[in-house]
Order: sequence, then C-alpha cells, then structure tokens
Amino acid sequence: MPGVGPVSATRIAYYLLDRKRQEGLNMAQVIEQSLKNISLCPHCRNYTDQENEPCELCKSDKRRSSGSICVVETPTDVSAIESSSSYSGNYFVLHGHLSPLDGIGPKELGLDVLRSRLESEDVKELILALSQTVEGDVTASYIASMAKKYGITVSRIATGVPLGGDLGSVDGNTLAMSFNYRRNM
Amino acid sequence: MPGVGPVSATRIAYYLLDRKRQEGLNMAQVIEQSLKNISLCPHCRNYTDQENEPCELCKSDKRRSSGSICVVETPTDVSAIESSSSYSGNYFVLHGHLSPLDGIGPKELGLDVLRSRLESEDVKELILALSQTVEGDVTASYIASMAKKYGITVSRIATGVPLGGDLGSVDGNTLAMSFNYRRNM
Repeated sequence: MPGVGPVSATRIAYYLLDRKRQEGLNMAQVIEQSLKNISLCPHCRNYTDQENEPCELCKSDKRRSSGSICVVETPTDVSAIESSSSYSGNYFVLHGHLSPLDGIGPKELGLDVLRSRLESEDVKELILALSQTVEGDVTASYIASMAKKYGITVSRIATGVPLGGDLGSVDGNTLAMSFNYRRNM
Repeated sequence: MPGVGPVSATRIAYYLLDRKRQEGLNMAQVIEQSLKNISLCPHCRNYTDQENEPCELCKSDKRRSSGSICVVETPTDVSAIESSSSYSGNYFVLHGHLSPLDGIGPKELGLDVLRSRLESEDVKELILALSQTVEGDVTASYIASMAKKYGITVSRIATGVPLGGDLGSVDGNTLAMSFNYRRNM
C-alpha cells in the first residue's frame, strides 16, 4: 500500500494481533463495506456510496443551475477544489488522462458519459482543471474539440506563479508560461 | 549575514586566520572593490559595474527595440527571468514594493525614473512581474494607473497552478485564483 513498506506492514500486523484485535476486526468490516458499496456516480464518475444514483454534488439543484462542469483527473482534485471554495458547479472525474500506449482511450475516461451530458444538459461552460503536464494538455485539447461541437465555452484553469511566491522560487518553465499568459490590467 | 550565524562566523574567522590568510585578504579586496564599484544602472536600476552608464541589458539595441519593459521587485528576479529565457525586453528594478508605513513611497522605488522612461522612450508594453502578494498587488495597481496615462498597455504575469503540479499540492487560494483567471481554449 502507498506509504506502508514491509517493515511497517509487519509492525501493524503484530500490533493488531497483540493488542487491537477487536478494532482490527471493525476496521476490516469497514474496509469491506466501503469497497463493496462505494461505486462511481453514473453522472460525474466521482465516488459515491449511493448505488446507481447521482451523488450528493450531482443532485444539488444549485450546482446544476450554474451551468458549468469542471473536468478533473482524480477524485482527490474534487476534494481540493471543494475545500478551496473556488467553484460551485458540477464535476466530471476522468480517473486519469489519455494515454493510448497504456490502453487508456476516451472510453476508459468515460468521455462517452461526458458527451451525453453535454448533449442532454444545459451546459454553458466546461472548465478543464487538468494537471499542467503533456498528458493533461493532450486530454484538454481532445475534450475541448469535443465540447466545441456543441457550442459550449471551454476554458482551462490558469497556469502561472502561485500566490505569495517570489519569482526566484518558481521553476523556469512556469515563469515562461506566466509571461505567455500574462493578463492585461 | 543571511545564513551565517555567530557559530559559523567564528569558525570562518578562525579558518581564515589559521590557514587562509592570503585568500582572506584577496576576498576582502574583492568585496571592497565590488561594494565600491557596483552601482545602480541609471536606466533600469539593476546593479551594474559601469558607473553612470547604462548596464549591458539596457545597452542592447535588440532589447530596446522590443518596446517592452518588465518591472520586477529585486535584481534576483531579473536573474530568474533571464535564466528562464522567457523574455527578451528591458527591465526596471524597484528594489522593493510600496510600503508607506515603512516610508517606502513611489520615489524610493525610483518610479520617477520609470515615469521619465515612459515619457521619453517608445514603450509599447509594461509587464509587471511583481510577487503575488498584497504589497505586490498595490504596487502593480499604482504603476498600472501611472502607465495608462501614457496610453501604454500594462499586463501582469499569470497567477495559477505551476507546471507539472497536481491540484492537490497547490494551496486553496492559488487554486481559487486559477479558476478566476481561467483562459478560454
């Protein structure tokens, strides 16, 4: 498991056996139930505990009425954006990015689901909050060309110097991008 | 001195006395000459070793013909931007930001020098590469309103998610800004 090597795993195993048998059993049940019951929301492909039903975020009328969908790569990104309170629309989780060599195409990312949402819902803007990497760029271009067929505004979150940082602590490529995408005042 | 506490200072002093007397004397001379001879370029206020003359960057015809001036807070920022090869115009170094409580006003930042450059030179664009802090914002607004009187385009380098970073590793405020300043695709 991420962050737990053989030594830590052994230590945890003996800890549960020696002192926390009941707690260990409880944990095993919680893990079992979670893995059995948490599935993908058919709407946004984020994790949800409500089988075959839209998740809480998708159910919200207020969010749907905003008319925007934010496309992210992972469920963690949804949590990050939610905790920054910067966005109040709907989401769509790709669970990765386009990577034809690894067999990850549009279908694996659920882009057919996204396409049917663009067709059926009243979407005004698609905000791509994908990572600023080559793979993120390719995925963004693909989704942008798809959405433009439906006449939907497509935007991508800004790349640049983070808040509070001085220029010396930013890498050269980010600095170059922040010059490219400078904004008029 | 930054990064050298009393213990390190003592160790350095004894090291020079014990073993490196000649090198220490050479270093003292170099420091003396540098501090005597390095002054501010009358044009861009960056450090230069040529007294009362424009520095190498200001002398370049190619840079001047670009018609843009990049305003930065420190000479270190000039080095950072130069090493990122993202910009090829002239510079102007403020050596700080507006801070009335500390007695740092427009004059202390050399904004009268900048104003006379805007008046006399053929400047098309002023790019503000100031830090993304409250002080940086205030300074940027002040300079922007000054430059607009001369009909010069003012822009500020982009704020947002750095390259290669995933959204989870970026602070909430930067994420919020990157939503605000999203760019159309």
